Amino acid sequence: MNVVLLGSGNVATHLALALKAIGENITQVFSPNLINAKTLAKKVGSEAINSFSEVERNADLYIISVKDDAIAEVAGNLKGIDGLVVHTSGTTDLKVLSSTVKHAGVFYPLQTFSKSKDVDFKMIPLCLEATDDMQLEILKQLANRLSTKVYQLDGEKRKVLHLAAVFACNFTNHLYALANDLLTNRDLDFDIIRPLIAETADKVMVDLPRNVQTGPALRNDESTINKHLTMLADLPELQEIYITLSNSIKLVHK
Amino acid sequence: MNVVLLGSGNVATHLALALKAIGENITQVFSPNLINAKTLAKKVGSEAINSFSEVERNADLYIISVKDDAIAEVAGNLKGIDGLVVHTSGTTDLKVLSSTVKHAGVFYPLQTFSKSKDVDFKMIPLCLEATDDMQLEILKQLANRLSTKVYQLDGEKRKVLHLAAVFACNFTNHLYALANDLLTNRDLDFDIIRPLIAETADKVMVDLPRNVQTGPALRNDESTINKHLTMLADLPELQEIYITLSNSIKLVHK
Repeated sequence: MNVVLLGSGNVATHLALALKAIGENITQVFSPNLINAKTLAKKVGSEAINSFSEVERNADLYIISVKDDAIAEVAGNLKGIDGLVVHTSGTTDLKVLSSTVKHAGVFYPLQTFSKSKDVDFKMIPLCLEATDDMQLEILKQLANRLSTKVYQLDGEKRKVLHLAAVFACNFTNHLYALANDLLTNRDLDFDIIRPLIAETADKVMVDLPRNVQTGPALRNDESTINKHLTMLADLPELQEIYITLSNSIKLVHK
Repeated sequence: MNVVLLGSGNVATHLALALKAIGENITQVFSPNLINAKTLAKKVGSEAINSFSEVERNADLYIISVKDDAIAEVAGNLKGIDGLVVHTSGTTDLKVLSSTVKHAGVFYPLQTFSKSKDVDFKMIPLCLEATDDMQLEILKQLANRLSTKVYQLDGEKRKVLHLAAVFACNFTNHLYALANDLLTNRDLDFDIIRPLIAETADKVMVDLPRNVQTGPALRNDESTINKHLTMLADLPELQEIYITLSNSIKLVHK
């Protein structure tokens, strides 16, 4: 397939590399910032462009991988194109595309991407949606070559998944960051807590999180909870997080 | 060494198995519940007891691995003993032991233990403290045979570490559980989000969490945040957690 990639961020970059690895031909990389377009285009052997007028009209697949609030604008510049146009957003309705282009779909990789870290694309859940069965079939065939975890999800489910991901990934990482702040304030290295973080994630690979919950809130250990709140007396934001999450644990496990 | 283990919970169990694996002799397992004592004693080939009067007085090491608020009581029954007495608690002062027994220490494994899941003890940080250098040396030599990650920490640092662990482990696992609740409410399987959880933890094995934060709060993406809050309208506890953690992310990254 000839693929035009619109975007040059983390998702666009990892997706482009994965597509290239399975032999797909990324003909163009578009970014309003030509330097960004060139950086990615160079990696995957394609043309870098920064003007919508340069977008070729006869590609098979157009992947819009930009910030959510820019998707509609990019799609507006693809009017009249015959190829399949997809976005990679967890929260954006399919109709943002389908109201503008003929063949529309969603190709949402559920993963947290950093430019500096490789990921095994085969393990990334790919969540698909399309305006009709034929387009869905095209996406499925492509997705199955990229990953072993392909899901067909409607927009409502995809949004719930994205929300769950904020809890399980974004908020979780922030808790790691707060833990690191507590440690470095007392000259303790983050390294000391890395095995615990790894094991906490590893435990839920084979079990459900509710079954493996531990800690003072689960045990209703008010003595330890109060000691911790005293230690956080000078950090009211952390105290609030501690109370909010402890109460939630108690509520779920009461 | 002859070791008496007082306790039969998750920490006691994993520690007993690790001690047996390096050839230490666990002579007795004490628990007020004899069935629990027997279950663990059988695994490590030792005697099960449920009365303090049966505790042998000449062991080299006594490990108290019980709930924090029961440590003082157990120690009270070890008065006059010559061997080293340690507890395995992250939050309990050394002096809870040293005010009662001659030789006291702390042997705190920083990990989340489930009875159903094996852990590689070599990777568990062991945090040591003792009343004097000779006892500390005994603990260090033992710890170095059990784990590659041995730390000498005073009580204040150990307590901070325990608090950080609540954020990085207990609260994190609860976020996984909340994510699972959101998914199952919409007939989505937890399996779909497991690769994301694994990668989120994996990213901070080589980088600091602040450097790899992602998500709508980091991007100040109020449009997505508001969509999420609307989706959580019927779940006020989750809405509160969402707001509290998003605000904290914004504050840290402003």
